[in-house]
Amino acid sequence: MTPALNDALSLARARVEAALETALPADDQPPTRLHQAMRYAVLAPGKRLRPFLVYEAGALCGVDAPDLDPAACAVEMIHAYSLVHDDLPAMDDDDLRRGQPTCHRAFDESTAILAGDALQTLAFEHLATATGVAAERRLEMVQTLAAAVGSQGMAGGQALDLGAVRHQLNAAQLETMHRYKTGALILASLRLGSLSGPHGVDDSVRQRLDEYGQCIGLAFQVQDDILDVTGDSEAIGKTSGADARRAKPTYPGLMGLEASQQFARRLRDGAVDALGGMGSGADRLRALADYIIQRER
Amino acid sequence: MTPALNDALSLARARVEAALETALPADDQPPTRLHQAMRYAVLAPGKRLRPFLVYEAGALCGVDAPDLDPAACAVEMIHAYSLVHDDLPAMDDDDLRRGQPTCHRAFDESTAILAGDALQTLAFEHLATATGVAAERRLEMVQTLAAAVGSQGMAGGQALDLGAVRHQLNAAQLETMHRYKTGALILASLRLGSLSGPHGVDDSVRQRLDEYGQCIGLAFQVQDDILDVTGDSEAIGKTSGADARRAKPTYPGLMGLEASQQFARRLRDGAVDALGGMGSGADRLRALADYIIQRER
Repeated sequence: MTPALNDALSLARARVEAALETALPADDQPPTRLHQAMRYAVLAPGKRLRPFLVYEAGALCGVDAPDLDPAACAVEMIHAYSLVHDDLPAMDDDDLRRGQPTCHRAFDESTAILAGDALQTLAFEHLATATGVAAERRLEMVQTLAAAVGSQGMAGGQALDLGAVRHQLNAAQLETMHRYKTGALILASLRLGSLSGPHGVDDSVRQRLDEYGQCIGLAFQVQDDILDVTGDSEAIGKTSGADARRAKPTYPGLMGLEASQQFARRLRDGAVDALGGMGSGADRLRALADYIIQRER
Repeated sequence: MTPALNDALSLARARVEAALETALPADDQPPTRLHQAMRYAVLAPGKRLRPFLVYEAGALCGVDAPDLDPAACAVEMIHAYSLVHDDLPAMDDDDLRRGQPTCHRAFDESTAILAGDALQTLAFEHLATATGVAAERRLEMVQTLAAAVGSQGMAGGQALDLGAVRHQLNAAQLETMHRYKTGALILASLRLGSLSGPHGVDDSVRQRLDEYGQCIGLAFQVQDDILDVTGDSEAIGKTSGADARRAKPTYPGLMGLEASQQFARRLRDGAVDALGGMGSGADRLRALADYIIQRER
């Protein structure tokens, strides 16, 4: 990771965590256990990649950082809600998340379901009450977020993912699943950033950010799949990772490890190309595309 | 039930069910299983009480019925999502709902969780895209719905309800729980109806509808508790109903059966009084207040 990207990620993380601290209900406010679970799920250590995308896309469109806080909080609340529900026993049944017990382990299953539910609501409420953005634009933000997280976005992707276990998917089906499950919210984060300003968004900028978002969203998943194979043992071809154990379809499983690594590099190139001509203001987003396929965890 | 109320309820039911039919994703649209579960949960037979409140409050404020469809659909989607999640094994663990297998029984637990999640999203999306309502007003509707269903509304009420099992609540705590769990969405339905028009809402009308909503929301719960005692055997004082078996606090358990019936009548009177001076346009809402405490199921 370049020092500039590292600094920018740290800054975005600190900024959104301070905003979330205020945006979330206090943990001594009734119903206290529910509010504690919501804060636990959101404030657990995280990369805050989606808020970073909000801030970077917003900055490219001339939006001041404080005006980006509501959208940054909203996408992180949605992300946290999806992790809480995905971790449930009826879903992926995970005990650990971000190095801590999952929400239903730290609290209980019913509290975790309700905390996820209430975090989704809070994300929309927070976005709808964002000051400094014209009403028409705020409505477009609510619509953008809703389209990205509903049955034809994130929730639909999780349904496809669960349905895909022990099924052979082809490359197109695997891409659709990832585009729904994680790509849609990554794309929405960039869009919400660009929509947060007082001025309209240039169509060509929007198109470039969309293309960038599609490439890094998929690259992120391909690299995740690669790390599931190479992460522990670095033995090429070893397929004893968690996804393989769960019989989840992966890119290395579908096209082999080397072709997957080539695919990830092509996606990185596509992301960088999409930002061509956008000047040095897009340098951090370019560095992020690099980092996504080079990261080792 | 008066014939006029019966007719109006049937009309509202037919109207919102036709609108929901279109508003919900088709069940052959991928992810098909998720969309089938969403339709199953929403289109199961129901009283459609909340959409009825949207239509009646809207009519009182001079709003045309077609302009009320989005809000009517949104509150019914939220209601359906809450039933799907409340019925889950980790929550109330119910097998039957509206005479049919619950969503997680008819499909599976993970599909039911995701269907509830996606229905919540769709409600906000549907409201945000409502045409015929000014952007500022639509945003207020999104905020109103979000405040009613989040951690200090419906989801918070369910958390309080689950936490109350095997705990002694006093009357104030029991009222708070119900106000959150069901009262908030009933109140929001009336508010969304009045907000759906092209003109602003008169402050005194809003206040009257709020007071009416608070009274019928609580009356509905008190009557539910009464029916849990008297419903099966009509033996006064018999406390072998489902709530009692689950050790859930109830009004008859707290204040006795007779005092509960008196309380329900006082709430009915309060609801009717709140609509004083609103003319014959409010007759159906008055009849509904009567029906709520007289119904036998």
